[in-house]
Amino acid sequence: MTTSISGRTVDALLPPFLKHDAIAYIENDILYIRDRRRLPLESVYVECRSTEEAARAIKAMVTQGGGPLEVALLSFLLASKRGENLDRTVDVLSSARPTNSTMRRTLSFILEEVKEGKSAERAVQGAFDYYDALYDEISDIGERLIEDGDGILTRCFPEHTFMLSVRKAADNGKHIRVYVPETRPYMQGARLTEPSLRAMGIECFLITDAMPAHFMAEGRITKFMTASDLALSDRTIVNKTGTLSDAIAACRYGIPYYAFSLSIDKEARRESIVLEERDGWGEEGFGAKMLYPLFDVIPSELVTGIITKEGVI
Amino acid sequence: MTTSISGRTVDALLPPFLKHDAIAYIENDILYIRDRRRLPLESVYVECRSTEEAARAIKAMVTQGGGPLEVALLSFLLASKRGENLDRTVDVLSSARPTNSTMRRTLSFILEEVKEGKSAERAVQGAFDYYDALYDEISDIGERLIEDGDGILTRCFPEHTFMLSVRKAADNGKHIRVYVPETRPYMQGARLTEPSLRAMGIECFLITDAMPAHFMAEGRITKFMTASDLALSDRTIVNKTGTLSDAIAACRYGIPYYAFSLSIDKEARRESIVLEERDGWGEEGFGAKMLYPLFDVIPSELVTGIITKEGVI
Repeated sequence: MTTSISGRTVDALLPPFLKHDAIAYIENDILYIRDRRRLPLESVYVECRSTEEAARAIKAMVTQGGGPLEVALLSFLLASKRGENLDRTVDVLSSARPTNSTMRRTLSFILEEVKEGKSAERAVQGAFDYYDALYDEISDIGERLIEDGDGILTRCFPEHTFMLSVRKAADNGKHIRVYVPETRPYMQGARLTEPSLRAMGIECFLITDAMPAHFMAEGRITKFMTASDLALSDRTIVNKTGTLSDAIAACRYGIPYYAFSLSIDKEARRESIVLEERDGWGEEGFGAKMLYPLFDVIPSELVTGIITKEGVI
Repeated sequence: MTTSISGRTVDALLPPFLKHDAIAYIENDILYIRDRRRLPLESVYVECRSTEEAARAIKAMVTQGGGPLEVALLSFLLASKRGENLDRTVDVLSSARPTNSTMRRTLSFILEEVKEGKSAERAVQGAFDYYDALYDEISDIGERLIEDGDGILTRCFPEHTFMLSVRKAADNGKHIRVYVPETRPYMQGARLTEPSLRAMGIECFLITDAMPAHFMAEGRITKFMTASDLALSDRTIVNKTGTLSDAIAACRYGIPYYAFSLSIDKEARRESIVLEERDGWGEEGFGAKMLYPLFDVIPSELVTGIITKEGVI
């Protein structure tokens, strides 16, 4: 049985890669996660039969952005069916992507609900419904920030809220162009963002990671909009490496930078952000020493606004 | 016969890819250009039997940076041997890389010398000697700007003057680290710069094109140094796309940006710079529309100094 989630209005507007069942689904009590590292050329799902396997897949970047949240919710559901210790389940899943505090907080929230007597099915379904409604609300706000004629730069794969904002803007007759950096080394921009925008009929250009400032200087980019892996209450943003560079250039050219956030992390402090850093990224190195910091910290003075359900902060 | 050029002191210090005969050489009146697009994994030379073939190779990026100058000089020598109209030869070669005004001016200069009665051999040899001496002088000045403990960011393949500066600094006991962006789409950083630095025993790290600001924010980068495809007398620099983004970030973090220049173009004006733009860069596009501007224009206020033989301007 495929887990089916209600609230399909949002799903219908989303590009193919972001529809719920295209991110992850359950069949015969096995969790299948679509391997984003191989999109768009291959559509392959990674099978997970335990919480540990799901956590390993998240850690290995099988899915990213909003993907880990959906995977974690479905994995929680299966763990509950298997009668696992759910405190441990939540720990294992949360630690697979420490920067993703939305996932951690959502898991803690549904864990509390289950402890208070709600069924795991209803708690997980409630979380999915909550996020679908949230995507819808936030993208209404994002849509209003987009003007006819905008050239919008993004970074990495900005997922539901950005995609829905752009889609709604286009549906409202606004003519926009989106500039998509490849996002090395995993090429999320080339593999996920650009094909998703194209599938929605949005005019878009693939550029290398070093080109945003060039197009800003030329006046072709008028807005910079990204998702955020973490948003702090002092308006500091944590997002894919490269966002800092773009935000600095945007600031210089007077281009507003907006980050979408599902929820502001009110507890995290800038000093305590632990950024994941990896050693390298594979075969291109020819023996080189490589550095791979996953995320940038973008200080609040470079952030024009955070787009949340409460409005633009 | 391999064209042998005097002034070998500089050649001995250079990394393997930059030694004269490793850039291009003449054998049996055929010009062989090493295909930089395939380095470091394959060492392949492109054969050119006419001025047109040499110009096409330059246009197709078989060689870049300082490579086109050496190719153009050797090609001029062969054209003279074949009794071609040398005005036309200079036109054809110069228009293969319009941004490279050093190549154009050098060709015009030796053309005048030949018209005044010098042999093509002596004119070309004189140009090679001039540039070897120039690399030596400029890199002495570059070396003095490098301090013990520096973390130096570069961009693309900064060639002779940068490589010699770094080599001399290391030989003088200064401990330095170089951060090398891959430089998509042709990966000059990954394929040429990083292996060249490693071959000289310099500690270096390969990073993606989006990461420089990250390491600047962390305090690991203390200088930004690049070559320049064009330097104007108002201190505007034209260099590989991405240089603008890095220069903006360097400015924000108070990190000095120095560009090496063999000769300031006193005639070119900022308004009249025609930047080469290409449509795409190959197979990664999956059908995407791609933009590929080759060069950035870096305004003088972002340039701390231009390193020339006259000193730091």
